Amino acid sequence: MFSSSIKNLIDNFSSLPGIGPKTAQKLVFYLLKQDKKILKNFGDSLLHAQDNIHFCSSCGQFTDTDLCYICHNQNRSHHSVCIVAESADISSLEKAHEFHGIYHVLHGLINPIENIGPENINLSPLIVKLKNNSISEIILALNPTIEGETTSLYLAKLIKKYPAVTLTRLARGLPQGSDLEYADEITLSNAFKGRTKI
Amino acid sequence: MFSSSIKNLIDNFSSLPGIGPKTAQKLVFYLLKQDKKILKNFGDSLLHAQDNIHFCSSCGQFTDTDLCYICHNQNRSHHSVCIVAESADISSLEKAHEFHGIYHVLHGLINPIENIGPENINLSPLIVKLKNNSISEIILALNPTIEGETTSLYLAKLIKKYPAVTLTRLARGLPQGSDLEYADEITLSNAFKGRTKI
Repeated sequence: MFSSSIKNLIDNFSSLPGIGPKTAQKLVFYLLKQDKKILKNFGDSLLHAQDNIHFCSSCGQFTDTDLCYICHNQNRSHHSVCIVAESADISSLEKAHEFHGIYHVLHGLINPIENIGPENINLSPLIVKLKNNSISEIILALNPTIEGETTSLYLAKLIKKYPAVTLTRLARGLPQGSDLEYADEITLSNAFKGRTKI
Repeated sequence: MFSSSIKNLIDNFSSLPGIGPKTAQKLVFYLLKQDKKILKNFGDSLLHAQDNIHFCSSCGQFTDTDLCYICHNQNRSHHSVCIVAESADISSLEKAHEFHGIYHVLHGLINPIENIGPENINLSPLIVKLKNNSISEIILALNPTIEGETTSLYLAKLIKKYPAVTLTRLARGLPQGSDLEYADEITLSNAFKGRTKI
């Protein structure tokens, strides 16, 4: 139905999550109607990413410099490490402006059903730092899901071998702006368990 | 928050219609987690499109060859022309497998409010064909909107100067699978006016 260049473009867009063939076609025809410079810039940015984006040698997040902008920042505490599952989680957590240490990206979570064990997630740079005694605090910021809990338990066991490290995880409870009436049992149970003095 | 290569990629994705910064970020992190070959292929397909995709010299639809696959096909009737607003409309109409002529793409519709007049839409190749007496039938397949109607009226006036050409437009009526209860007045009125013998 389309010429091969157009079909190829549509196929690339529809390979993305949440983008079906109809949306892909809409996006491609939108792009084709724009200035040629926009197509070129878009293509260049993908090829540039292919050539330049790699994992930060310290924390493992995506970056185009050797150390990412967070690990490179000497104003942040390098003794305090927040462990996240994915690079994308960092941008969410940074928006809270609460944490001033560095991150460590696991690039996945332990999931026995899908055969993802501790050896399949990014742990070795963290273990090196632990062995060097360069960490004084670790915050686990993994999703409150089965995989997140499994991974948190595994990490807790691992990190407890280094008693100098203070280990915490993000609080569980009611999200801001929520309604008690619609909160699920586990959230309410967590909110009770974690109640704080006022 | 992100390194410049990643920010650039996110900006490119979020410039697309219907894709906000959150979705763009999700798509970029998805792509970065894939094989580098996929990024390269995606980037190459955009640059290839920039270099190779242009308008078909006969009908005006996007193509990477001089004549598009429809105008190139000698099994289709080149005397029967279906006029559409955009290249994307062709793929929808082709799915009906009803029309076996060639298309003509206007690349827009007349819209006095936005200062788009007949001189801003792709008409000249059509007028050349009309003057050469190479067209025997024209079907108007423009959206049933104010702009579509305005353009249809303009084209009807233009084409009536060539009495050898049979001019029709797509039927108006109830869409397949619809419910009379929810049909709007104009659709029902069109369905009455266009009622056919059974």
